[in-house]
Amino acid sequence: MNQDYIIPDNWSILEEGFDAARVEASESLFSLGNGAMGQRANFEENYSGSSFQGSYIAGVYYPDKTKVGWWKNGYPEYFAKVLNAPNWIGVNVYINGEELDLNTCKEIRYFRRELNMKEGWYERSFTAILPNEVEVAVKVIRFLSLKRNELGAINFEIELKNTDANVIFEPYLDSGITNEDANWEEKFWETLSVKSVEEQAFVTAKTLKTEFHATAFMQSSLFKNGKVLNAAFEEKVHEDKISFTYSSEVKKGDKIALHKFGGYVTDMNHKRENLIAAAQAVLEGAVSAGFETLLQEQKDAWAGIWEMADIAIEGDVKAQQGIRFNIFQLNQTYLGEDARLNIGPKGFTGEKYGGSTYWDTEAYCIPFYMATKNHEVARNLLTYRYNHLDKAIENAKKLGFSNGAALYPMVTMNGEESHNEWEITFEEIHRNGAMVVAIKRYVEYTGDFSYVPEKGLEVMIAIARFWQQRANYSTKKDKFVILGVTGPNEYENNVNNNWYTNYIAKWCIDYCLASLEKVEREYDSDFKRIIEKTDLKEEELARWKEVSEKMYFPYSEEYKVFLQQDSFLDKEIIPVSELSRAQRPINQKWSWDRILRSCYIKQADVLQGFYFFEEHFSKEELEKHFDFYEPLTVHESSLSPCVHSIQAAALGRMDQAYQFYLRTSRLDLDDYNNEVKEGCHITSMAGTWMSIVEGFGGMRVIDGKLSFNPRIPEGWDSYSFKLNFRNQILKISVAPQKTSFSLEGTEPLEILVNGKPVAVMPSVLLTV
Amino acid sequence: MNQDYIIPDNWSILEEGFDAARVEASESLFSLGNGAMGQRANFEENYSGSSFQGSYIAGVYYPDKTKVGWWKNGYPEYFAKVLNAPNWIGVNVYINGEELDLNTCKEIRYFRRELNMKEGWYERSFTAILPNEVEVAVKVIRFLSLKRNELGAINFEIELKNTDANVIFEPYLDSGITNEDANWEEKFWETLSVKSVEEQAFVTAKTLKTEFHATAFMQSSLFKNGKVLNAAFEEKVHEDKISFTYSSEVKKGDKIALHKFGGYVTDMNHKRENLIAAAQAVLEGAVSAGFETLLQEQKDAWAGIWEMADIAIEGDVKAQQGIRFNIFQLNQTYLGEDARLNIGPKGFTGEKYGGSTYWDTEAYCIPFYMATKNHEVARNLLTYRYNHLDKAIENAKKLGFSNGAALYPMVTMNGEESHNEWEITFEEIHRNGAMVVAIKRYVEYTGDFSYVPEKGLEVMIAIARFWQQRANYSTKKDKFVILGVTGPNEYENNVNNNWYTNYIAKWCIDYCLASLEKVEREYDSDFKRIIEKTDLKEEELARWKEVSEKMYFPYSEEYKVFLQQDSFLDKEIIPVSELSRAQRPINQKWSWDRILRSCYIKQADVLQGFYFFEEHFSKEELEKHFDFYEPLTVHESSLSPCVHSIQAAALGRMDQAYQFYLRTSRLDLDDYNNEVKEGCHITSMAGTWMSIVEGFGGMRVIDGKLSFNPRIPEGWDSYSFKLNFRNQILKISVAPQKTSFSLEGTEPLEILVNGKPVAVMPSVLLTV
Repeated sequence: MNQDYIIPDNWSILEEGFDAARVEASESLFSLGNGAMGQRANFEENYSGSSFQGSYIAGVYYPDKTKVGWWKNGYPEYFAKVLNAPNWIGVNVYINGEELDLNTCKEIRYFRRELNMKEGWYERSFTAILPNEVEVAVKVIRFLSLKRNELGAINFEIELKNTDANVIFEPYLDSGITNEDANWEEKFWETLSVKSVEEQAFVTAKTLKTEFHATAFMQSSLFKNGKVLNAAFEEKVHEDKISFTYSSEVKKGDKIALHKFGGYVTDMNHKRENLIAAAQAVLEGAVSAGFETLLQEQKDAWAGIWEMADIAIEGDVKAQQGIRFNIFQLNQTYLGEDARLNIGPKGFTGEKYGGSTYWDTEAYCIPFYMATKNHEVARNLLTYRYNHLDKAIENAKKLGFSNGAALYPMVTMNGEESHNEWEITFEEIHRNGAMVVAIKRYVEYTGDFSYVPEKGLEVMIAIARFWQQRANYSTKKDKFVILGVTGPNEYENNVNNNWYTNYIAKWCIDYCLASLEKVEREYDSDFKRIIEKTDLKEEELARWKEVSEKMYFPYSEEYKVFLQQDSFLDKEIIPVSELSRAQRPINQKWSWDRILRSCYIKQADVLQGFYFFEEHFSKEELEKHFDFYEPLTVHESSLSPCVHSIQAAALGRMDQAYQFYLRTSRLDLDDYNNEVKEGCHITSMAGTWMSIVEGFGGMRVIDGKLSFNPRIPEGWDSYSFKLNFRNQILKISVAPQKTSFSLEGTEPLEILVNGKPVAVMPSVLLTV
Repeated sequence: MNQDYIIPDNWSILEEGFDAARVEASESLFSLGNGAMGQRANFEENYSGSSFQGSYIAGVYYPDKTKVGWWKNGYPEYFAKVLNAPNWIGVNVYINGEELDLNTCKEIRYFRRELNMKEGWYERSFTAILPNEVEVAVKVIRFLSLKRNELGAINFEIELKNTDANVIFEPYLDSGITNEDANWEEKFWETLSVKSVEEQAFVTAKTLKTEFHATAFMQSSLFKNGKVLNAAFEEKVHEDKISFTYSSEVKKGDKIALHKFGGYVTDMNHKRENLIAAAQAVLEGAVSAGFETLLQEQKDAWAGIWEMADIAIEGDVKAQQGIRFNIFQLNQTYLGEDARLNIGPKGFTGEKYGGSTYWDTEAYCIPFYMATKNHEVARNLLTYRYNHLDKAIENAKKLGFSNGAALYPMVTMNGEESHNEWEITFEEIHRNGAMVVAIKRYVEYTGDFSYVPEKGLEVMIAIARFWQQRANYSTKKDKFVILGVTGPNEYENNVNNNWYTNYIAKWCIDYCLASLEKVEREYDSDFKRIIEKTDLKEEELARWKEVSEKMYFPYSEEYKVFLQQDSFLDKEIIPVSELSRAQRPINQKWSWDRILRSCYIKQADVLQGFYFFEEHFSKEELEKHFDFYEPLTVHESSLSPCVHSIQAAALGRMDQAYQFYLRTSRLDLDDYNNEVKEGCHITSMAGTWMSIVEGFGGMRVIDGKLSFNPRIPEGWDSYSFKLNFRNQILKISVAPQKTSFSLEGTEPLEILVNGKPVAVMPSVLLTV
């Protein structure tokens, strides 16, 4: 743990006291998002200290030309970068001509931030003495509207504490921004127009290469002691910036406030020629509603989300704050209404990694969205990959595959690969398997098989084709092998027969074959359409079956475990506990070759397979593999602790499960890896949710039924969560020795509790 | 083969006819060098067509900031780039005010280049009609003096064919140059001063970061019909350029010529404050000798080199031209007088690859220099690595090794690693072995063991330490294994137990142990000094021995061959002959992962081990391995054909040996890989020499004696070469059924011919 300044609270993220060294970390932690746009917690007024500026528009990206020392065939031409978008939040403030800048104030007497997760707003308040001795008390509230997702609102209020003074607010829009993360120090935006219509201002810019057009807009009003001031203002127009200057004489003790409404409209949702009109419509709606009404809408919208998504924990405020922070960020990042969008690993909290979509979505995020939202949301996430199928086929073609085989990209924005390390881009092919696991989970959980004949089966066929072509027959082994891969553990590269990869490859083929049979039986016209479209022949199926039946799995007779890869046991096996603290994290201390030949595991690999396919193995097998691999795991990926937490809980090791839970739920709040200033780890936050629901709660779907094995960490009074299971809402509350279920549905629901069937009736609280 | 325009000739490289598409290739092929500086065959006069400008100063480099997509710990900060140096050859020419530019001439009636390898000069002659209808016949001779290695000389002669005209020569110096190969488009040079003293001009510039100071200089004289003209000239000085303008009225049929002397002096050889004085001394010597005398010196110097280094082939002019081109380029690149220098893979013919020193030097180049020069030259090459030992130890430390273990860099200029691909930089560690092989070859060939106690043993100890630490004990195998390496075949990365690497690792330890014993017995004071300096203890030696004795070697019982690496037989084994032409070269057609999991071999790997350690194996074993591996080899490295040529010859397969010989000797002349415009493949040229001497001639050193198994390709009348063996000069001539030896020495020499001992007497020609 590297920091401990966030004040524990059930519903808010709180910081007190100003420390310039924490500014960038807090900019990440107090980020806002509404699924369509997002904003790091940058100050509205100018700040001359170190800061990492970030405003983001979902789906708007820049294809940054690939930077690589040694080009390899098959590398993509570009890396899709999340873009810092034009600034709409900026408000310069001058008091008696002195600029308000927390970096130059003589004294900061008070400073507090609150991210109110329950209601979805962010407040910053401080008292400061400016270099000219004027003392100001400032309170700024900001939110990005969930209901009107092109709109953000700011209430910037100043009280003069020790003197009368002239106060100038200068709200502005600025498209002259840069990205921290740019390969070639190029500009990503070109400003097209800067204009105003009375009190409204608009800056329209387009991204270079991708040609996304976006209009940032604003309109402001001035209030004194809560009453609107129809003040005159002066307009300044620059090449890529526009500002309005509001000047007023303010008396000591008076409160002067600027309400600024702003945001973005883009050509993803409007015609280019209508962008300004669309912006005007947003502004007019906002102005006529007013700040307070908009804020109330926001509180209502978040109440709606929490109603379904909340996990309440009694008796452990840090754990409570952790899980709510995770759930809040997931909902800020992605709300599931737009099948063009996905869940970026940093969400709207930073630029790092680029691209929006990793296998994280399928492997970690889908269960959370499936259980806490309408099932349409998970279907949209699946459809996202269906829509990218042609590009995945093209991608596989570039790597020498044929006949409609698909390889989904490691990282993507629009379906094209945008990562460029050969050992990852070309070899971390297990990602293909997660696409099919997500379909399987969706079908099992929602009971909606119709997605398979409609879309899923085509994806499965293309992936089965890939695996069949990618495996090759080893005469030596009389088995099919998969050579030269990187498994989920990225601390081994270019290995042979990664067990996880081979296992998921075989499973993908088998699941596709079973789905084909079911679709043939039950969805005749879909079956015909798909067979025709994919030109799938019996001979090909025979080849798939041969590969599946003869797939090779490395196994150690000595340890009775599947081996991570062929040569794992040639390594020196020394548990992490014997590795000195000074050597860790190994990814910062060791050269890459040393990491690769070590036995240390970055994140669940064989155990990831045991997580996805738990039902294929006995508890004794799980235990044996957990005891073999976990002690060698350094958990240097944010995605590692959650899977181990779930498995530790399944093995009844609640202490260990709880330690892993804390590590995943407070990863960013406590900044375990000393990097939160670059942004939060959004996708792993879904893993935190799984740690409670699947880990402590032991939730599984078994034979179409929800099943629970509820446990509770020591010291917790209770925890509770809701699940949308097949369109019925089930609430589960767990307290020591006492679990209760209540159902908001119309049909009775048969569930399994500790392996025993139990019927839950609507509107009846059942305690077991 | 991609081109066929070089005219076969025994002693010259000839091109006739002007083709703009060939300009860049010819710029490489007609390059000049004198070991201290070099020059692509760029035109002196302006050329507005496509050209790749290159002037190089040996040892002067720029540390270009590493460009990499994803940083890995241990990567070097920079990549040492060979630098395009200030231009000293430039001479602008104007005829009646019209610029002479072969790209804009109305007609080029005649165009011829000759690189006279026998005498070491380059001549370009052409007849052209300018846009203003003036017809000129031009002849330019250029050379870089071997005797005065800071000096180059140009004789630029023009004859007016159809009219009287005004002719202006404008010789210049220019430091405003760029590199084709720059990571960040930065400038590499900063001009410090531009000045003149009467007819002499000087441009002093320094390289950024490395701060090499170099002064380019020039002085010119004008001649009409062979008589000096004391013409007035006009000086023009720019920020980084200086020129003198000589204008004369010339009559039709007259010949007007400019003699330009120029070159570089640098602070590698002079004090910075004396650079201009040093340049003046060079110029004064040149001017007082005059062009013709300097040219005669050049012819004499090359005669001296050829006297010893030539290989004469009768009956096959293309083979003759090929080998002489190779020998000529090697001597242009490196003459062995300066232990700070080495043999860059492109020599002075291009920028590609950067750095000057690869394992090519030890693996391929040392035999050539050892046999054709004073043994001091090979000793200098060994000393180069001894001088870099501390940096090699530092380099190993960065990768986690300790106790004085050394890892020599993959690519270097000054001893520091300057390559940055993890699978090469960190894993292609077999290069360490070549350092010791070179010492062994030196000792065997020269009989000079004194290098070992003086310097070599320290290198060997540091390398033995590396291997002992790098191997790890596999309980599964009860053997020591070496995991995660790239062998000489760079088409496999991060493999386990590459046989070549394991074999050379064990051998390095054994050879070091044997050398330690010999030094202890025979060089007592050296032994004490080294043991003290290296702090070498008995316990450590015991660990070395354990690793050597229990080293693991992958072997196939089925095929009775050592396996290239543990998993080689899991691959699909399909010979290259069954691979369609359209798929090749695979490094241009396939993605990297596909190459890696294929069975295709870039260059000798197991066979490289059989080459270095031929005496450890029977001919049957060689044959078995050759027949297993060669058919899987795509020879996509310039270093591949020579080793296979030698082994094919050893197996008596002369046709195959000859095919490989042609491929290596005419690789650049015939531009097999369509890339000669980037520069020539200098280091592999030493392999060509080996193909004849060790391949066709069957030369080996066996128990301290020279041994031959002479063979001759079909169609050759004879071939002959000389060897400096232990300071006696032996000349070998091979004709069908008849080999003769003559000795220029003082002692009789016992050699082995076809396994039988034969005494060669001084001054007696022995025919067997």
